[in-house]
Amino acid sequence: MTPDELTDLENIKRLKYAYLRCLDQKDWQGLRELLVEDATAAYSGGRYTYQGRDEIVGFVERNMGREQFHSSHRAHHPEITLEGDRAAATWALEDIVVDSEWNFLLIGAAFYEDVYVRVGESWRIQHTGYRRSFEMTLPTTSIEGFALTASWWGTDGQSSLPVM
Amino acid sequence: MTPDELTDLENIKRLKYAYLRCLDQKDWQGLRELLVEDATAAYSGGRYTYQGRDEIVGFVERNMGREQFHSSHRAHHPEITLEGDRAAATWALEDIVVDSEWNFLLIGAAFYEDVYVRVGESWRIQHTGYRRSFEMTLPTTSIEGFALTASWWGTDGQSSLPVM
Amino acid sequence: MTPDELTDLENIKRLKYAYLRCLDQKDWQGLRELLVEDATAAYSGGRYTYQGRDEIVGFVERNMGREQFHSSHRAHHPEITLEGDRAAATWALEDIVVDSEWNFLLIGAAFYEDVYVRVGESWRIQHTGYRRSFEMTLPTTSIEGFALTASWWGTDGQSSLPVM
Repeated sequence: MTPDELTDLENIKRLKYAYLRCLDQKDWQGLRELLVEDATAAYSGGRYTYQGRDEIVGFVERNMGREQFHSSHRAHHPEITLEGDRAAATWALEDIVVDSEWNFLLIGAAFYEDVYVRVGESWRIQHTGYRRSFEMTLPTTSIEGFALTASWWGTDGQSSLPVM
Repeated sequence: MTPDELTDLENIKRLKYAYLRCLDQKDWQGLRELLVEDATAAYSGGRYTYQGRDEIVGFVERNMGREQFHSSHRAHHPEITLEGDRAAATWALEDIVVDSEWNFLLIGAAFYEDVYVRVGESWRIQHTGYRRSFEMTLPTTSIEGFALTASWWGTDGQSSLPVM
Repeated sequence: MTPDELTDLENIKRLKYAYLRCLDQKDWQGLRELLVEDATAAYSGGRYTYQGRDEIVGFVERNMGREQFHSSHRAHHPEITLEGDRAAATWALEDIVVDSEWNFLLIGAAFYEDVYVRVGESWRIQHTGYRRSFEMTLPTTSIEGFALTASWWGTDGQSSLPVM
């Protein structure tokens, strides 16, 4: 690969990382800017499908907007194929959600199939979608002594655990 | 590093990513093609040791073949040393298994020590092995309300959770 | 980006990977060598703040030194900005702790904001700090049948689970 191709790979990875950072920090304006206007999404094996940036961001904001909804989405294992000003990629996702209002924990895994396009000097998301390997949920009230000990919103990101 | 060396690093990372994708998608033929014929494996601190591609793939298929065995193996933190047509690497593993037949959850972490070889234009696995940092299991029946809400095989990768 | 810049990115990533490997393997001497002498740390939204390599390594060693404290710290999503001989980076952390003496499980997520400096041919950590997205804990004794089935220290990294 040439330095230009290696740079494209690095920049596409960073696009995905920024997308997931915006998601978990609830930065909806930042998220918008990473998607082209006619972007499409097919989450959860296509069960949650959206057309256009407005629909996608609307879906995410409605379902992940509450500050009691704490999420960690981590993308692993990028296998990116460059095709000039387009690129396709497979990623492995793991996600954790702990909801301190509805008292549930979710742990999931999936494989993404994304498409990116070059817009000027940078890359944007044209399509994103994933199919679940598994997803499990449990009520946190079922576990005696379960505690949320830090929250980005509730505790300024600080833990309440003692240290030595 | 030269562009060629940077390309080798990228291609070795993708070899590992493809290996783990094949593992979690139960693509045994795909897995075979990533190993050289005389590849060796020493999983779990050497407790599960195999000689040759047939033994390795056989072990994996016997133990991870059931569709109720849902796994997510994620490799992090590649520290790769290139030595011409060979390479050595350390990786940090986290893995989750949720088994909906035997009703257990497993969460583990480990460090891989791998060896790769260049075969023609591509890289293959010569040796793979890991030592566990920890591994924990629990019966999912011990948690009231535990549910598997999506499965690659059981639900076509779709979640049964409602969204807004 | 030039090959030199791409190499800097790779080397900075490896610095972070080595830091987390030393942490989880309890290699305190290895950890020391990755920090400049006047390094600073602000963990957990700044609640745990330390000045200088001695204070940082002392904090880590006091709190994570016991062999019953099994940790997996995984850094994802590097967004690195090079500025000559300095660099700033955002990372997404997920960490798991399973403590077999105090019988608790911790699962957390956070975003790091780090600063690195070039020292001779290599990179070192000048500042590291993270803010928690969330952190949850539970007593493992609350889950009937919970078991630690492998430990780097307690079982030489081998699992006690049967395989076929």
